Amino acid sequence: MKVEPYLKILAEKGGSDLYFSTGAPPSAKFNGVLKPLSKTPAPPGWVNSLAQEIMKTVNASILSIQPGEVKLEFPYQTNLTQQHGFIHAGIVSTVLDSACGYAAFSLMPKGAAVLSIEFKINFLSPAKGKLFQAVGTVKKPGRNITVTEGELFVCVDGGQKLVATMVGTMMSVYDREGIEN
Amino acid sequence: MKVEPYLKILAEKGGSDLYFSTGAPPSAKFNGVLKPLSKTPAPPGWVNSLAQEIMKTVNASILSIQPGEVKLEFPYQTNLTQQHGFIHAGIVSTVLDSACGYAAFSLMPKGAAVLSIEFKINFLSPAKGKLFQAVGTVKKPGRNITVTEGELFVCVDGGQKLVATMVGTMMSVYDREGIEN
Amino acid sequence: MKVEPYLKILAEKGGSDLYFSTGAPPSAKFNGVLKPLSKTPAPPGWVNSLAQEIMKTVNASILSIQPGEVKLEFPYQTNLTQQHGFIHAGIVSTVLDSACGYAAFSLMPKGAAVLSIEFKINFLSPAKGKLFQAVGTVKKPGRNITVTEGELFVCVDGGQKLVATMVGTMMSVYDREGIEN
Amino acid sequence: MKVEPYLKILAEKGGSDLYFSTGAPPSAKFNGVLKPLSKTPAPPGWVNSLAQEIMKTVNASILSIQPGEVKLEFPYQTNLTQQHGFIHAGIVSTVLDSACGYAAFSLMPKGAAVLSIEFKINFLSPAKGKLFQAVGTVKKPGRNITVTEGELFVCVDGGQKLVATMVGTMMSVYDREGIEN
Repeated sequence: MKVEPYLKILAEKGGSDLYFSTGAPPSAKFNGVLKPLSKTPAPPGWVNSLAQEIMKTVNASILSIQPGEVKLEFPYQTNLTQQHGFIHAGIVSTVLDSACGYAAFSLMPKGAAVLSIEFKINFLSPAKGKLFQAVGTVKKPGRNITVTEGELFVCVDGGQKLVATMVGTMMSVYDREGIEN
Repeated sequence: MKVEPYLKILAEKGGSDLYFSTGAPPSAKFNGVLKPLSKTPAPPGWVNSLAQEIMKTVNASILSIQPGEVKLEFPYQTNLTQQHGFIHAGIVSTVLDSACGYAAFSLMPKGAAVLSIEFKINFLSPAKGKLFQAVGTVKKPGRNITVTEGELFVCVDGGQKLVATMVGTMMSVYDREGIEN
Repeated sequence: MKVEPYLKILAEKGGSDLYFSTGAPPSAKFNGVLKPLSKTPAPPGWVNSLAQEIMKTVNASILSIQPGEVKLEFPYQTNLTQQHGFIHAGIVSTVLDSACGYAAFSLMPKGAAVLSIEFKINFLSPAKGKLFQAVGTVKKPGRNITVTEGELFVCVDGGQKLVATMVGTMMSVYDREGIEN
Repeated sequence: MKVEPYLKILAEKGGSDLYFSTGAPPSAKFNGVLKPLSKTPAPPGWVNSLAQEIMKTVNASILSIQPGEVKLEFPYQTNLTQQHGFIHAGIVSTVLDSACGYAAFSLMPKGAAVLSIEFKINFLSPAKGKLFQAVGTVKKPGRNITVTEGELFVCVDGGQKLVATMVGTMMSVYDREGIEN
């Protein structure tokens, strides 16, 4: 994935250098170990335009934003659980879909809005724990269609455990009334 | 789909005849028109065992439970929206996954618990409106694996509009610690 | 699904009335019972433009073409099997993907080419038998994105048995070099 | 993914050390660059038990087998193409499904057979070229359910280009008549 051409666009989008404040180079694939990043205040313009009420409801925060990769975090909450006390599959989907959608948006041209066409998610182990981290990455960017991958981890002693994996297809929307990021 | 053999099991499960209080025969496939059902109080035992905190958070209620088919309903809420003011894709997934999981559970043997292995969801039109109805149906029941389909509709003047379709694979879990319905 | 506006387009596409020679009205959803249709010779222009070498390799033939619905048929062949002697999952996918792609194409504007973006397939019972029939239907047409559903049946004594279900997302491609239907 | 415990099982399964003849350590994730491996003659017992007629039809050969990872290769053939002359989406699925199924099987207990429950595949670029390589990897092994990922590449000057990605759910089948690997 060539990301260089997008850096300028991204900077213009957010009007800020903060996107890159984590210093880490964009990784093509999340390596399974979330480093203890300082929470990066995301660029105001960018994040405001993507502000989602649901992210407040699940208490999600942004861990990092890089071209083609976005990491989110949210804590366990009883009001988000299914019948066994685990985080509900749909909430796992919610945070992964947002991470993937944000990642796709980070590589889209200025003026584009992002919509989910479809996704598929596999649940590998129960979403049981205190803190969850999601990473969305772009597998293949495109003018109209962007393919993304997401992984959700639960933080456990000494590391993370993989909870779910997503593959999502995102669409760039241009000039459609009522849909603007 | 033969459902007769399951009627007895279902009755035993819930200890109640209320499952069938809607009077309608089990339909193999939702026909796209949600009739104005009176809200059926679901059988206490059955529903208690599947009670999900997340269903309260999204204010979902049960429209009907039949062998192999469950209908849920929830209203628009600002705190469940994405950046364009539509219900977030993950919340659409949440209600559909529950409808599909409940439908799968309705045909499982007594003592089984239900877990989602995976699902795929397509978003056909924006989740924009005041009231949403989800229907989960069993496409293929099995002792271990049950394949389900779900459709989410938004209620509009004079009918419904299809918002999303799901295909979900559910697993029957027996005797696993911490996972009991 | 309103199909009327497309009838003219379809007729122009194929330069023939033969699309509708089966006489049956377009059905929104395949009802699970494939009637003993006489094999309809498909309109030459239309079919030539979609001719696929792979369809010859699997000996598939067209049972019927209607706006938004295409039925294909193929026989058991040993050279298409997996290790248990069933038709390989990928061959099941091949015929379903073509049925879905053709169905999508039947509702696309003149000049469009069709490409598969992605699909998901569930295998419900072994692809074991002498004759298989696939039906692809359009769930939601669109200028750029068309969502389709497919079902593959094996013909057994007195009816059909469902083998696999597909959900596929198709894209209309306009003016892209090397991709013309 | 801990693979050590499986080495002994694998050796017993195949009755051979040949599984590991490529010398490469099992990689958790394919890195996108297929090294020019010498074609490894796969262990007779193992491969015979998985022999698929369809693999002959598509002229696929095994590049390497390791615990949790299998690589296959096949050449362009006109008789496997769709209407634009690309390899048909279903044939791409065929080889990826086999790679994923073999990878899942490599970590299953002795006596188990492998069946595909479902898969989802995204098509990222046209399957256009002379030689294709598929890699299937196990994302999460389990006694009953194994989740796999697959990637298909076309070999181009100086490297590979990603054509398609798969996520597949495989089932271990024990003691079911007619289904034995």
